This record gives sequence, structure tokens and C-alpha cells, in this order.
Amino acid sequence: MHRSHTCGELRIENVGQEVNLAGWVQRTRDMGGMTFVDLRDRYGITQLSFSIDENEKLCSKARKLGREFVVKATGKVVERESKNPKLETGDVEILVTSLKVFSPSEVPPFTIEDETDGGEELRMRYRYLDLRRKPLLKNLKLRHQLALETRKFLDQNEFMEIETPYLIKSTPEGARDFVVPSRMHGGEFYALPQSPQTFKQLLMIGGYDRYFQIVRCFRDEDLRADRQPEFTQIDCEMAFVEQEDVLQTFEGLMKHFFKEIKGVDLPEFPRMTYADAMARFGSDKPDTRFGMEFVELNDTVQKKGFKVFDDAELVVGVCAEGAAGWSRKQLDALTDFVRRPQVGAQGLIYCKHNEDGTFKSSVDKFFDQNQLNSWASKFDSKPGDLMLVLAGPTNKVRKQLNELRLYVGGELGLRNPDEYSPLWVVDFPLFEQDEETGDFHAMHHPFTSPKADQMGFLESSPGSVNANAYDMVINGVELGGGSIRIHDEELQKQMFRILGFSDEEAKAQFGFLMGAFKYGAPPHGGIAFGFDRIAALFGGTDSIRDYIAFPKNNAGRDLMIDSPSEISDEQLKELHLQVKSES
Amino acid sequence: MHRSHTCGELRIENVGQEVNLAGWVQRTRDMGGMTFVDLRDRYGITQLSFSIDENEKLCSKARKLGREFVVKATGKVVERESKNPKLETGDVEILVTSLKVFSPSEVPPFTIEDETDGGEELRMRYRYLDLRRKPLLKNLKLRHQLALETRKFLDQNEFMEIETPYLIKSTPEGARDFVVPSRMHGGEFYALPQSPQTFKQLLMIGGYDRYFQIVRCFRDEDLRADRQPEFTQIDCEMAFVEQEDVLQTFEGLMKHFFKEIKGVDLPEFPRMTYADAMARFGSDKPDTRFGMEFVELNDTVQKKGFKVFDDAELVVGVCAEGAAGWSRKQLDALTDFVRRPQVGAQGLIYCKHNEDGTFKSSVDKFFDQNQLNSWASKFDSKPGDLMLVLAGPTNKVRKQLNELRLYVGGELGLRNPDEYSPLWVVDFPLFEQDEETGDFHAMHHPFTSPKADQMGFLESSPGSVNANAYDMVINGVELGGGSIRIHDEELQKQMFRILGFSDEEAKAQFGFLMGAFKYGAPPHGGIAFGFDRIAALFGGTDSIRDYIAFPKNNAGRDLMIDSPSEISDEQLKELHLQVKSES
Repeated sequence: MHRSHTCGELRIENVGQEVNLAGWVQRTRDMGGMTFVDLRDRYGITQLSFSIDENEKLCSKARKLGREFVVKATGKVVERESKNPKLETGDVEILVTSLKVFSPSEVPPFTIEDETDGGEELRMRYRYLDLRRKPLLKNLKLRHQLALETRKFLDQNEFMEIETPYLIKSTPEGARDFVVPSRMHGGEFYALPQSPQTFKQLLMIGGYDRYFQIVRCFRDEDLRADRQPEFTQIDCEMAFVEQEDVLQTFEGLMKHFFKEIKGVDLPEFPRMTYADAMARFGSDKPDTRFGMEFVELNDTVQKKGFKVFDDAELVVGVCAEGAAGWSRKQLDALTDFVRRPQVGAQGLIYCKHNEDGTFKSSVDKFFDQNQLNSWASKFDSKPGDLMLVLAGPTNKVRKQLNELRLYVGGELGLRNPDEYSPLWVVDFPLFEQDEETGDFHAMHHPFTSPKADQMGFLESSPGSVNANAYDMVINGVELGGGSIRIHDEELQKQMFRILGFSDEEAKAQFGFLMGAFKYGAPPHGGIAFGFDRIAALFGGTDSIRDYIAFPKNNAGRDLMIDSPSEISDEQLKELHLQVKSES
Repeated sequence: MHRSHTCGELRIENVGQEVNLAGWVQRTRDMGGMTFVDLRDRYGITQLSFSIDENEKLCSKARKLGREFVVKATGKVVERESKNPKLETGDVEILVTSLKVFSPSEVPPFTIEDETDGGEELRMRYRYLDLRRKPLLKNLKLRHQLALETRKFLDQNEFMEIETPYLIKSTPEGARDFVVPSRMHGGEFYALPQSPQTFKQLLMIGGYDRYFQIVRCFRDEDLRADRQPEFTQIDCEMAFVEQEDVLQTFEGLMKHFFKEIKGVDLPEFPRMTYADAMARFGSDKPDTRFGMEFVELNDTVQKKGFKVFDDAELVVGVCAEGAAGWSRKQLDALTDFVRRPQVGAQGLIYCKHNEDGTFKSSVDKFFDQNQLNSWASKFDSKPGDLMLVLAGPTNKVRKQLNELRLYVGGELGLRNPDEYSPLWVVDFPLFEQDEETGDFHAMHHPFTSPKADQMGFLESSPGSVNANAYDMVINGVELGGGSIRIHDEELQKQMFRILGFSDEEAKAQFGFLMGAFKYGAPPHGGIAFGFDRIAALFGGTDSIRDYIAFPKNNAGRDLMIDSPSEISDEQLKELHLQVKSES
């Protein structure tokens, strides 16, 4: 071993010991006759000291060390004259007697400090240097710990981790598959799994009644910010359970994480139906750290001569506590916010509940003080509050107001990153209907079971049927979702029919699963968590990219290894493929 | 929860309790007025009992249950009249008061018992049924436990598990890559990793000085028996280490497995050089559970007029203890064995050391008793032993004799599956030379470092240079291998040159790694274990397929999901690809 201790290990008790340290040069400082080198590794920083009087040659060598040189230093641990309380090793330093340079370093393209001057692209290109920075090290340590705690908890609860294949079969349901051409079977392809869904169901049919896997999943989507073509799930499934059993079990997992990692005891997670979540927050993943619940105003504000309200399917608002004092500029910014194409509202109506009890609104032409007072009753507003109102088609306006609520909540400091508000959103619709084509798509996936008492409406009114489906949401982030599955061949066939599969298509793609239902399938259900997202939640930052060692950029490209890239003609030929030039 | 207990849980202490069990019907037996049902789940079997006198309707229902029906039974735990000591639950049974059938089952295509009547192909097609069999359940439990113990041990030793990407870049070195066409970057491809080799090296350069990952790897090889296109590795890397540190650490991991899983304390692993292993056993993965070491006979047997020996580069044999009594038929079988094309010898010479001290050989025409006695001295044979001799070109004849030694060792019962003989094979050659082209290939991989004292021969005599490379071998199975890596740009460039890469090719494929060497690379090295193979070793059977939940067959096909398969023209078009029909 090229070291006897790490750079985070030595303390005052080690004074007098001969040690070997190895690591990276964080910086060197020449102070008259002394040279100090901060040596860094994964565990910390230790100061090396060199005296020009004691060993001139060694000291000159030390002075030539540049940032990020990799060295080994041998010497004696001594107590420091001026201690550094910011460092765990700050009581001591090493009087170096021998120094070996393993590797010099060119000047890095950005500074390797907690705050760096490197832009995102540069840092992606030199990811191995970015990974040396403490914030990323901390993130990957957290991820490692979360994975360990996942396995500890689930193993203790009788779950078996079982690996499922990565070379599987392409199915057109859901997002696009990445495919893998077969050399041995010309013209045929494997697909990379979007999730191990069907395999975990087959494991339930195989009797493995508690399965989990921390597993990579792949989706060939047009990338949006903070989406990755490959991402990691905690994938879980249980047999002989009902919905409530799944919720209890995985609420337990999340509580375990909070206890072990944050030292926080979370209370029982409240449940909220999808319908409630949409009506109260305009979102199926409401941030419940703060109130500002939706207040519907149709009864109060329609038929008063204001066309925008009168023509709207829904008039709905939120009350921003203490924001009546916001300036014209701030209010204009809110209007600009809702008019952004990502939000898409036409405009914003506001009404200030002034400190003196009067009202000042942007629609004073249409509503007198009395009428505005009835708004205030609806909103339960107090002097000093600000009412914000949108109007339009129900689904759209709810989504718009959700964005506004989150934005204003942020502005008001109501989204405290150190506070955690979990909940289960339940009773999702089984289907969502394509607005243009009228086709029904599975909201969760085609293996999700309908509520038993709504089975009768599957054919007559599919859009009204709810599913045994649930999402776990914390602070407005959907961490995981799942469902109780169908375990009956006939019901599964019916689902595929409603989803527009012909019997032949259903059989070609999922025949193996429906075949398995013939041989004794237990009732089962499960959940999958976004592992990258859980790490980001616990790490307290937004981008999952900061929790992935080697992420891809928004164009799905790995800038460091320069991938994807062309392959040789010989490889293409072996794969029976030809690249078509763009026409 | 559809059950209060599992089918493996109830004991005499539970008598009197009302319970719910759920599981699969293993079998039903009608005994006069009673019907008994063995209900099975992952945890065990519990007997359900139904009395026609007490509840005729329920009893008739039970009589109609077929094998593999999934049911829920409610009833009272009672003590059994005739106990079954073979079952952990054999002291009790359930007097069933209510029975619900979750799913009926068609008659399974093979019997779901420890010993099944299903052929391999049928069992692969219905893998979810095969997985219900206890031997497979046991294997997957073992695999789960091995993964947990791996993580426990490595975490305790400061290793961090870090996920590396699956969508990487194709490189022509080594086996063929599976590739993944990019939709967003037409004509470009990702590749699936053959191993995370370069990424783990970049992690070392990034300062993560102890990394591991249980990770899927992919190789598009022409499949041989017991190879899988996707397989799992325990992939590990350490920085600031020398070879001995790596050996000590991972010998520790293997000892941990043996301690935790078998309750066995393994002694220190002996080390054997590659050269010794080849000379003494004809293999770089010798089965050292038994002796029968190679004895070289050139000095003793050449120039006695027997052309086969005289013309041979090497005459070498093994002594089979106590096998002098083998019949003509048995000896012929040995000759047939070595003549099989997989072994490839021309013939086999034997010499019996008879109980009376005389010798009987297949070459008595050329060697008299005196001369055969000098063979016996070389072999250190005793009366009753059998000497077996092969002759030919050194490398070939060693491989042939290795096969023969293993075969005879097996016949003599010397390969006890309950005995474990581990060793490290070290000092592998850096290169192997293609016999036809004379080209040098990396024996381990192109990132492996040469022995420091042999650096000078890299250009002049590459074939003579040894590497800092090592394999862990137990009972003749190579469980893992690794090396100390190159961490210097110039040496890495030199390696690529010797391997026939142009500077441009090296840069295009591995430029990111050599670029990383410019910014402070620590000395590092690591190892990768075949996880499937470790599971098979601990499980005590040969085929890794029995330790993979959903394996592929020898043609790389998943018979259950029927993959690979054709994809739609639309998918191909989106991927900018065209399938070329065979010409």
C-alpha cells in the first residue's frame, strides 16, 4: 500500500508517528523558509510541511508541485503551530522527509474547489476532474448509502433482490425503446428495458413473493432538462397483497431513509385522491409543504359582466399570504410568469386585500368593494394578503395555477428545503384519453388493475374508471409510483382491447405474460422509485445529473467519451444493417 | 394482506390460532372422509385439511383443486395426528373453514418438484414455472445472499458502489460489442459495456480510491455452452495500491463468503506463477484439490527408438494412484477421451505399475522393465498406480494432459465438491501472440501494466514480458481476474502501439482515458469476479444458467419472451437503419 493513512485520518493522538500519505495536491504555499502543501484525497486534507533549512532539495521539490499532482509523502506527524479548526486534521501536519511524485498534472481546465469556475459542458467533458470536487463526492457517497439502506431494509423485510435481463423484447407501449441488433439472428433485435415490469410480474407468478432490484432502465425519449436516457429505479413487487399493504411497506422504506440519513422521524403519510390533488393543487404531485390551496370562484365571480370569467369553465385562485404589498413590478412579473409558453395562461387577475381592509384589484372596473369582499370570504384572506386568479378550461387552468402557486410559494419562502411533506396520491384514473384522437392510453401501464367496484364501466365509460394505482410524493416531487396488477388473463385481454391492441398484437408482445396467468397467478402489486430522484431529494439539490457519476447531456451524449459514435462498416455488416442517409 | 402467515411459519406453538395462508397447491389427497392439500409458497409447505363430515361443500371444493391453483385458506391451526418430520411445519395442519381460489391453473407442462420431468427447452420457455422449483429458489436465494455479503464486506472496507453507464462507446478491442443505434444522432451508436474497465479507472483518477459495483456486462460472442450474452460481475478497483494489496483485499472477500455462507475458514491462498501452473498442471486455472502433477519425461524417454517420443517437443505424464487395475475397456475410454476433437491428442501411452512391482505398458516394444522402472522413479509411482503419458508440441500437449488429468481425477473421486482449494495464479504474460499472424494481443487487457523490471523488453521482446496480472482460482474455476493498471500516458501509448493501434485509432477510442492521465493519475489496480460463476461454485452445480432468473439459451435467445425479434419498419426508420437481407 502506498499509504499508511488517508488524508482525513490523522489527529493529535498520532503526533510522533511516521506515516505515508498519498493524494492530490490541492495547493502549495511558500511562507519564507517553509512550504506547505495541502494534500487531498477522498477522506480529507492534510497539511504537508517542508523546511528549506532542514532539507533544501526536498523543499524545492515541493515548491514545484502544481495543483492536482499526485504524490506520496513520508514523514512524521507533528502538532501544528497555528491550528486550522476547519479541517478535521487541522491539529497536525506532516514534516515530510521523502516525497515521490506519482503523476504530474497539467493545469486543470477549471478549478477543483467546492465552487468551480467551470461551465457545465466543460465539467461534463472532464467529468473525472469534476468528480474530484467535494459536492459531487458527497452526492455519490449519499447515493451509495441510500443503496445500502434500501437493500438492508428490504432484505430485513424478506425481499429478495433478483436480477432481470437487460436484453429483452421491444414493445410499442409507452416510451420508445432502445434496441440492440442481434448479430446471430439477422434482422432481429433485443430491446433494453424501460423497466423490468413484466419480469417482476413473472417472478410473482414464479412464487418469489417479495422482489426488489436496484436496476437501470432505458427510455429513448426526446430529452428534456434533467432527463437521462438511462436512469436507475428501485423496482419492487409483492404477491398476496392489497394496495394498503404496498403503501405501508414502502412508506416504511422511505421512513427508514429519513431516519437513517437525516435522523428525522416522519409521521404517517397522508393519502389524497388524484381528483382531490387536481382540484386542490392542480397537480398529481402537490407540494404540500405549504397551503395556498385552490379556491374555486365560479359561483362568486361569474355573471357579473366580466367576460373572461363568464366564458371560463373554471375560475380559480390562490391566496398569497402577506403579499398585498407587492409592487407593480412584482405583479407584472407574475403576469409575465403565467404568460410564459411553458405555463400558457392568457393573463392574471389579482386582488390586494389592503391592510386597511379595502381591496385593490386588476378588475375594479367589473367588481366593486362589496363583491371583492365576497372573494375575500371565499379565499379566507386577511388584510395584507394577495388573491391571484386565473380563468379558463378546467384542466388547463389548474395546471397553470399549479405553476403559479409553486412560483409564489417559492417567492414567499414557503418551500423550505429542510422540511419534508410526504403523501400518497391514490385512485388515479385507469386511462387517459388522447384529446385529438380520442384513444385511451393506460395512465400507469396496461398491467394496472381497475378498482373492483368499477369493473362494470370498463367498456361503457373507460374514462371514468379509477385504478388501484398510487404515487409517493414528497415536496412536490414524484419519487415513485405503482399499482396493484391484473392477474387474470381475461381482464388483461380486455385491457389490451380497450387500449386498441388487436388480439394478435397483444399475443405477439405480451403472450408470455398472459400465458403465465394460465398457471396460477397470485394477486400482486408493486412500486418503482426513481433512485436518482431520491438521491437528489436527500442531497437537497434539483438536478439528478449531480447524483450520477457519468451522466449524459440533454442531447443524450456522453461528452467525455464522445458517445454515441460511428461504428465500423465491418460491425454494421456483421449486424446485417445499413445506415440510411437522411433523405 | 391476503395471509397472516407464510406456508413455512406455523409450529406447534401456533395451535389454536386462526390463520390465513395463501399459496400454490402442491398436491391434494383424498383419504376417505378427509381431504388434504399441501399448500406451498417460497417459505415452505403447510397441510390444509378438510373433513367431509364437518363441511361437505368446502371439502368438495378442495377436492377440485388442481396442482398449482393459487388459493387462500382460512382456518384454525391444529396438531396433526400423524406428524411429518420432513416438513418444518409438519407438526400442525390447518382445519380450513373458508377457501378462496385466486387463480386456477392448467396442468403445468412439467412437474414442479425438486426433480422435474421437463427438458431444458421446455423449462426455459416456461421459466416462471421452473422458478417455482425448490432447487432454483435455493439458487436465487444464495445469489441474493452473496450480493448482500459482497456489499457488506466491501462497504465495511470503505469501498463505494458507484454506477457506471450502460450506454457507452464501441471499441474493437476484445470480444464483440453489442451496439445500440441512436435515434437522435443518425448513423451513430452506443455500445453496451463488456465491463466498466475504463470508467472504473476514471473513478480512480477522480479520487474514488475504492470502487465496486455489481454490474451487468455484455459480450456478443459466439456462444459456447454455459456462456451468456449478458452476465454479472463484481467489479472492483483500488488506488494507491500494489498487487499484493489487491490480492489481500479480495482474498478477504472470498474468505468472508466462505465464512458467512459455508461456515468454513479458508487458509491463506497460495500463489502460483502462470509459468508454474502451465508446467505443473497445463492450465492457468489448475484444480488443486488433488495432486497428479505433470511429470516431464523428455530426459528419461527420448532417444530410446520410440519415434512418437523422440519427435515430440514435450513428453509429459501424470500418475493415477491406484488405477493400475483399470480394465482394457477403461483404458480404451481414456484413449478415446484424449482423441476427442475438443482434446485433440493423437494417442495415449500408459504404463501400469503392477502390484507385483512389474510394469505393463502400451509401449513394451520400445521400453523394457528397467526403462519403465526409471519412468516409475520419475513419477514416484507405487505398485497399483497407472502412468499416463502424452507427447507433442509443448503448449498443446500440456492442454491435452490438463483435460486428461481432470477427467481421471474425476473418475478417481479426487474432485470432492465439498472441498475447496483456492489459489492465486500470478505473473501472467503481458501479451499472447497470434500463432498465424504473429500479432500481439493483450492477454488481460491493454490497460494492464508490465512488471517494472521487464519494461526494457517491451519493444525488443514483448512476448517475454510478464504483467502485474492475477487470477483467483478455486477448484479449477477462474472466479476472477485483474491487474495493476498503467497510469502513465506514455506507457499506455506504447502499449497501444505494440498492440497495433495507430496513434489516431488509440486517440479516437481511448483518448478520454489518456487525456485523464494528464491530470494526476494515481497508481491503481483492481479485479473483476464472475458473479454467476461464484454463485454456481457456492451452489455446488456447474451451470451458471441455474443461477440466473431469466437466462438465454446457447443461441442467445430468450425462449420465454421470444427475443430477439423483429421490430417495426417505423422503428427502423426512426433509427436511420435498414436491415440488409442476406446476400
